[in-house]
Amino acid sequence: MAEKPKKPSKLRARLPRGLADRGPAEIAATRAMVEKIREVYERYGFEPVETPAFEYTDALGKFLPDQDRPNEGVFSLQDDDEQWISLRYDLTAPLARYVAENFDSLPKPYRSYRFGWVFRNEKPGPGRFRQFMQFDADTVGAPTAAADAEMCMMAADTMEALGIPRGSYVVKVNNRKVLDGVLESIGLGGEENAGQRLTVLRAIDKLDKFPIEEIKKLLGQGRWDGGEEGKGDFTKGAGLSEEGIAIILDFVGGQGETWADVTKYKAPTDDEWIRTGAEMSAVTALPESRPNYFYFNSRLLTHWHDLVSKSDVGRQGIDELRQMLTLAESAGYGSQRFRISAETIRGLEYYTGPVYEVELLLETKDEKGRPVRFGSVGGGGRYDGLVSRFRGEPVPATGFSIGVSRLQAALTLIGQLDNKPQPGPVVVTVFGGEIAGYQKMVATLRKAGIRAELYLGNPKHSLGQQMKYADKRNSPCAIIQGSDEKQQGIVQIKDLILGAELASLEKDRDEYLKKQAEAQFSCKEDELVAKVQELLQRRGVVWG
Amino acid sequence: MAEKPKKPSKLRARLPRGLADRGPAEIAATRAMVEKIREVYERYGFEPVETPAFEYTDALGKFLPDQDRPNEGVFSLQDDDEQWISLRYDLTAPLARYVAENFDSLPKPYRSYRFGWVFRNEKPGPGRFRQFMQFDADTVGAPTAAADAEMCMMAADTMEALGIPRGSYVVKVNNRKVLDGVLESIGLGGEENAGQRLTVLRAIDKLDKFPIEEIKKLLGQGRWDGGEEGKGDFTKGAGLSEEGIAIILDFVGGQGETWADVTKYKAPTDDEWIRTGAEMSAVTALPESRPNYFYFNSRLLTHWHDLVSKSDVGRQGIDELRQMLTLAESAGYGSQRFRISAETIRGLEYYTGPVYEVELLLETKDEKGRPVRFGSVGGGGRYDGLVSRFRGEPVPATGFSIGVSRLQAALTLIGQLDNKPQPGPVVVTVFGGEIAGYQKMVATLRKAGIRAELYLGNPKHSLGQQMKYADKRNSPCAIIQGSDEKQQGIVQIKDLILGAELASLEKDRDEYLKKQAEAQFSCKEDELVAKVQELLQRRGVVWG
Repeated sequence: MAEKPKKPSKLRARLPRGLADRGPAEIAATRAMVEKIREVYERYGFEPVETPAFEYTDALGKFLPDQDRPNEGVFSLQDDDEQWISLRYDLTAPLARYVAENFDSLPKPYRSYRFGWVFRNEKPGPGRFRQFMQFDADTVGAPTAAADAEMCMMAADTMEALGIPRGSYVVKVNNRKVLDGVLESIGLGGEENAGQRLTVLRAIDKLDKFPIEEIKKLLGQGRWDGGEEGKGDFTKGAGLSEEGIAIILDFVGGQGETWADVTKYKAPTDDEWIRTGAEMSAVTALPESRPNYFYFNSRLLTHWHDLVSKSDVGRQGIDELRQMLTLAESAGYGSQRFRISAETIRGLEYYTGPVYEVELLLETKDEKGRPVRFGSVGGGGRYDGLVSRFRGEPVPATGFSIGVSRLQAALTLIGQLDNKPQPGPVVVTVFGGEIAGYQKMVATLRKAGIRAELYLGNPKHSLGQQMKYADKRNSPCAIIQGSDEKQQGIVQIKDLILGAELASLEKDRDEYLKKQAEAQFSCKEDELVAKVQELLQRRGVVWG
Repeated sequence: MAEKPKKPSKLRARLPRGLADRGPAEIAATRAMVEKIREVYERYGFEPVETPAFEYTDALGKFLPDQDRPNEGVFSLQDDDEQWISLRYDLTAPLARYVAENFDSLPKPYRSYRFGWVFRNEKPGPGRFRQFMQFDADTVGAPTAAADAEMCMMAADTMEALGIPRGSYVVKVNNRKVLDGVLESIGLGGEENAGQRLTVLRAIDKLDKFPIEEIKKLLGQGRWDGGEEGKGDFTKGAGLSEEGIAIILDFVGGQGETWADVTKYKAPTDDEWIRTGAEMSAVTALPESRPNYFYFNSRLLTHWHDLVSKSDVGRQGIDELRQMLTLAESAGYGSQRFRISAETIRGLEYYTGPVYEVELLLETKDEKGRPVRFGSVGGGGRYDGLVSRFRGEPVPATGFSIGVSRLQAALTLIGQLDNKPQPGPVVVTVFGGEIAGYQKMVATLRKAGIRAELYLGNPKHSLGQQMKYADKRNSPCAIIQGSDEKQQGIVQIKDLILGAELASLEKDRDEYLKKQAEAQFSCKEDELVAKVQELLQRRGVVWG
């Protein structure tokens, strides 16, 4: 039905908060990134599989991204069968459903990768979106820490494939079982202490934000936002005893000093940093400001072992970390790239063993222009319970997820992604009512593989208006044929790249006059393709 | 927090109806298709732009996919600001919002393309999904039919780029203004007859499903499902007079005969079919069964012109169709590819002028094994009202959308998409507890660009179990190193492609014995990469 807008009352065109449109440069950059990541993952033997955007809400389960607001954090709605369905908030929970549903037909271990949009129904903020892209790899049915070690090595290889130099990233590794062992050792084992355990983990998670004194408050009675009583909100603490706080700080490397002191004091010596000769040269390239808050891997593990020696689960966690270190080091991934780190917690509830995250050591500026580290661009861990929920039998699994949008921002920052606009198409301008002849020229150019288009604005627009359009499209050249040229069977080719250079030259110089002649020239209609091809080559135009 | 599944009560792993998972072959096929479509669109001067999955519901507006159920058909929910947001049901409405929001900074005409998932909250059925992929191109700010003609030519070029031979597809073109003119001529103009007009359009839309007698009922008093009174549901008709029905049937080419008669009777003669010599040869390749229900384009336009001669809007529609025909023919797109067709209606409400659709003339089988044409794989039209809603000024626009999933099914059917499984990675098998050495082999293979993995299942699994896994992964070869080989510093390479061939040979023949020796051989550890590379080349393994 032909339908005209009936009311002049205007609707406001705006996007809901926390969502973003994407232009050509950003799309091309994502494409380039995704291709590189895919290449690494396939080299590691992972094959693609994809699930849709929706799952039954119960299949996503209680593993929601934000436990403060259970059943919030995801977009949910009732479908026409009155069943609750939700948009995926990550790519792991849907993969668990997929594997459970197709369990018998899949090879096991089942190694797969996928990328796509995920959705969070959260308050958006700067750099915090309600739709963002993840790129995941998962190994289901692999019980040993070898699978976790492989994920960490793949994460490192991916960073280097994307152009992030060694020394500018680190894979940080921890183990939920070690954390559990530590918490057990201060009397926080068992289901009844789940809430308190979570509060402790959240306090540890803030180690890179707050000085140690503030962390102590979060582990003890609580903390006022802004650091002073009565100012801002109050965050209730974990209520640990002095002794409990001391053990947690010992675990994370604090021991009561200020955090700055600790990082200085605990800085590994050169020979602790460097395990292989190959890494020697790269170390000098480490940024000066890099906080050395990692213990040296094996020294840290020994220390942790003492802390959790009475806990079975804790010792098991230490063993798994040791296995991962051994495997990584034997494959050439030494302690410069691969680090045990107490502060690596990972937000999601479903992790059961090793957790890992890739941190970029690159510096960027915050809103106030202060240098800050870029931080985490991906992570993952072992989630042995996620597939088991469907199967009623143990199904071990581990997976790694890259935050594509965030990593893309980092790569743009270090100049590893091209942000230049692409050259536009050749524009064939139009004169008079009869445009069939111009359309034919366009078709001829396209058939020769040249990006080309007819000017499709109002055909009464002047040549000036049409050239303005070609400039805005970043076109390398425009084709012009007035009625005189038509009669003679010729066309004019206007070189817009040279034209732009001309504008910056003095008008009476020889160079100007010479270039002016070159910037617009005529040719026979049947030479059009050849002449345009020559021009594109002369100006180095390559469409990506 | 390390967390174990607490209850043995199993959750059922299943996907909500109308959604689908996608495996490696399907993903690779989509990727190949999308690349080819992109290549054509960019050659036509379109640039990529993407919008997110959500829009404010009011921005999608009243242009919902199914007018029978206003505000249904889309997935909507209230966000934390209590505002209604909806998942996009197509890529056109969000593009209209994008253009309106960025109007001043965009070149005009604005030519862009995008592909992505769209969502419909409808009852799913066979081949009818609630999430599917579209690939769209749109030109905004182009007022003339030249832009519509370009879309149709691009549609044709895209089909051929995807491997659909000329003669196996046709671009069908109609114009909502002509339809309006016809409806006006039978007294159905004006806002008060909007409902009746829609009923008439829906009846026309059923022309390829029902015999002409049933269409007559839908245009008149109504029709019982199953064709007999009291059987099935009753669909109320448009209530046209005998005269009105006759005019509609005349317009669509019916004139009261059965549809089969009409298509026979109206079949164009050879010289009407063929406008250019180049198309001559292709005509003979047309499938015999192809229903020739198109009038020859210009003859049809003359006939239509007589029908709507008293209606301004009707005559304007005829003019636009004529312009499109002229442009297409001058660019070499004759009547074999480009057809005026009364039955092309397009479901969406927002179209205001030319509408077009690509139909595949390929045959497939329905559930009962009867041959049916594959039908429409894409379409679009002019939607001059969609951007205007936001701007309060006229913003002409036209766009074309490919149903990627549907087209992919067609391409698979005609063998234009590879559905073979990819070769899997080289599998390094493990023995004993110490796997660091095997991990190192894997790292070495990967570093040489060879897809490889460590067997990550239970390390106590037998060699047989590990080989079964390698077979299931479609691996070209497996690497084996027992303790003896380890001591000698050698590895065994098992050629699984040759191994599969061996299984079909008689065991005592010379050939068998020769190949058996070739199918498993040993080499020094440091020759591993070279020997595997040789094997891959010998067996023609190429990873895509």
